[in-house]
Amino acid sequence: MAHEIHLDPWADLYATRMSNMKGSAIRAMMGSAEIPGMIALAGGLPNTKPIGLDDVVRATRETMKAEGGTALQYGSSEGHKGLKRHIIKLMAEEGVTVDYDDFILTQGSQQALDLVARTFIDVGDRIIVEAPSYVGALQATSGYQPDYLQIRMDDDGMVVDELAVALKKLGPRSAKFIYVVPNFHNPAGVTLPLERRKRLIELARQYELLIFEDNPYGRLRYEGEDIPSLRSMDESVMYTSTFSKIFSPGMRIGWIIAPHPILDKIVIGKQASDLCSSNFAQMVLEHYFDRNLWQKNIEQLRDVYRSRRDAMIAALEEFFPEGTSWTKPAGGFFLWATLPEYLDSSEMLAEAIENKVSYVPGNAFYADGSGAHHMRLAFCYEDEEKITEAIKRLGKVIKGQMALAKSLLIKE
Amino acid sequence: MAHEIHLDPWADLYATRMSNMKGSAIRAMMGSAEIPGMIALAGGLPNTKPIGLDDVVRATRETMKAEGGTALQYGSSEGHKGLKRHIIKLMAEEGVTVDYDDFILTQGSQQALDLVARTFIDVGDRIIVEAPSYVGALQATSGYQPDYLQIRMDDDGMVVDELAVALKKLGPRSAKFIYVVPNFHNPAGVTLPLERRKRLIELARQYELLIFEDNPYGRLRYEGEDIPSLRSMDESVMYTSTFSKIFSPGMRIGWIIAPHPILDKIVIGKQASDLCSSNFAQMVLEHYFDRNLWQKNIEQLRDVYRSRRDAMIAALEEFFPEGTSWTKPAGGFFLWATLPEYLDSSEMLAEAIENKVSYVPGNAFYADGSGAHHMRLAFCYEDEEKITEAIKRLGKVIKGQMALAKSLLIKE
Repeated sequence: MAHEIHLDPWADLYATRMSNMKGSAIRAMMGSAEIPGMIALAGGLPNTKPIGLDDVVRATRETMKAEGGTALQYGSSEGHKGLKRHIIKLMAEEGVTVDYDDFILTQGSQQALDLVARTFIDVGDRIIVEAPSYVGALQATSGYQPDYLQIRMDDDGMVVDELAVALKKLGPRSAKFIYVVPNFHNPAGVTLPLERRKRLIELARQYELLIFEDNPYGRLRYEGEDIPSLRSMDESVMYTSTFSKIFSPGMRIGWIIAPHPILDKIVIGKQASDLCSSNFAQMVLEHYFDRNLWQKNIEQLRDVYRSRRDAMIAALEEFFPEGTSWTKPAGGFFLWATLPEYLDSSEMLAEAIENKVSYVPGNAFYADGSGAHHMRLAFCYEDEEKITEAIKRLGKVIKGQMALAKSLLIKE
Repeated sequence: MAHEIHLDPWADLYATRMSNMKGSAIRAMMGSAEIPGMIALAGGLPNTKPIGLDDVVRATRETMKAEGGTALQYGSSEGHKGLKRHIIKLMAEEGVTVDYDDFILTQGSQQALDLVARTFIDVGDRIIVEAPSYVGALQATSGYQPDYLQIRMDDDGMVVDELAVALKKLGPRSAKFIYVVPNFHNPAGVTLPLERRKRLIELARQYELLIFEDNPYGRLRYEGEDIPSLRSMDESVMYTSTFSKIFSPGMRIGWIIAPHPILDKIVIGKQASDLCSSNFAQMVLEHYFDRNLWQKNIEQLRDVYRSRRDAMIAALEEFFPEGTSWTKPAGGFFLWATLPEYLDSSEMLAEAIENKVSYVPGNAFYADGSGAHHMRLAFCYEDEEKITEAIKRLGKVIKGQMALAKSLLIKE
């Protein structure tokens, strides 16, 4: 690889941002999923099995009948109204009242992350993120070269008291925004309790800071009661979600709610990025949602994911050695495991892959590259039996690494 | 509007790039298309009528049958291989030999413009563009805050001799890339002849500059012989095209070819932007193209567009006053009209809209905001009768403005 870089005749032409941007650790691992016998705990691929393929064909037929050539034409940058209608309903169910012009559709919520970063971040501007934070958000923002202020998480999400201490020092308007995933955090699997949400809103008001709430997993709760979103508590909160987890990531449709002056800027960024999203995908999605099939799908999905999560936790208890720990997600796709600090999960990955199990090393989720003694384990994709086997294999690898480390310590 | 801006409590938080970025003049005009009786010469909306809606439904059915849930899943950032197969064939027909890993799929070619800008442009970096240039390219690049070097166009496209003079002063590697639309230019309607293409390639080699070729309209030639693309003459040329004009812009699928080291950077940008394009749209497109229906469609389209172009030129000859001129496009969607220098087509637009005809003022297509005495007239969208009527209305508005300007001159 180093060899190739030296041969690149355009190496001196790239923008400085390119040296900040890394390829996705998760996407890079997708290739390993094709190795026979591999059990993939790396990628967060949703289960699309409950979706009736005939229903998608039917939605396409209805789209062609109802919309005709319009479905094949350029659409508005803000998004197709017919689909927005469904999002308005979805948000209302979450206690958030929005009208058509309060949000726009995006190319998955990844584009919402990119557009917010584009709207706010100049080189060196501070943004506040959780540690760990969603790797896609780190990727989207890193191209705009911000300074990251990382706020530690515990089993209840961002430690808001530590944010308060930091803000007391930094003062008002000291960051462009605070990025937070309050529900079933990716990668940490934890959820921000109501009291912390309230305190976060208070702090944002006190220090005149924008909050950017990312809520892809909110409807994938496997027990307990829903907690109000930050956006439902304060209308200045920017909020993104997506159809990827409640329906299909293959459509690439998400949305972002923001105060109107900010949304106007975001639309300009959207035009520069891709003019508009696919009318075809938006309209097929609209007609699919017209029949309310997604609600039954998601009930099924909750059962599937809950059972897989339970299998993973049971296996961890059985096969992971003393000195390791993990979060107990009440929803979502991921669980966050912590190894002894002297272990490096990114170094360990090769051995895991050899043993035909994949995961994402923890350092992918830290803006400062720390966190290598953590690992993200996805329970969404493989079935219970495979999850159990994968954790068994992984436990063995970890035990081996721990024994090796101890023997080296004794020799020294 | 100014009032609203003052009320924006986040005005001091936006990135400096946002003050460089304007909303699209063309998209803003889309609203006017809904005024009853309006004849739209503004937007470049392709004609999607030849597409059989049943064929799209059939392609969806075949997608679901052949790909199943994969069509609803995340795809690769580089794009779906099945669709890439068709692009490889399309490019081969144009004399460009590419393999699967020589290009990636993008969200229309607009995303290719954004990703190339993202890959190369730091604030203040020079890029070289035609004057006029495609407004979407100016939008995509402006967010990265380059300095634009504008090279004048004449009836044969970019005046390459003037580029040579500029480069002689500036020396090698004096720009990040040269952006050029060689075929049926948007907005100018002109085509770069073979000799100029060869000279451009020579200059790029001599001064070690990258060329970025944008070719959305190449297959929409209404007379004469195809001219080899720049990419067919030099493999270091970056090349983008799209399905928007040969099939449907509603799918939002384009592609970009680039040397491998550059493509690696572009993929990282793609991941940060939207992870991947829609598997669903890509696969439906693949199955639609499997049946080769697009070739008949495009033959029909050529006849439709040629006849509309002819109607527009005939009407211009009849209704536009002395002192105006226009290009005679051999293909594409647009014709570029030039008014006397003392007229401002952006000021004139309100009166045109009152008279129920729309166009895009020329200054939208200049990086420096000049060019207001030009106007872009799209002949792709309205039928012959409406085009004739629109040009008649527009001729009247222009004559009125010319008379008014003369009377003011006499008074002074």
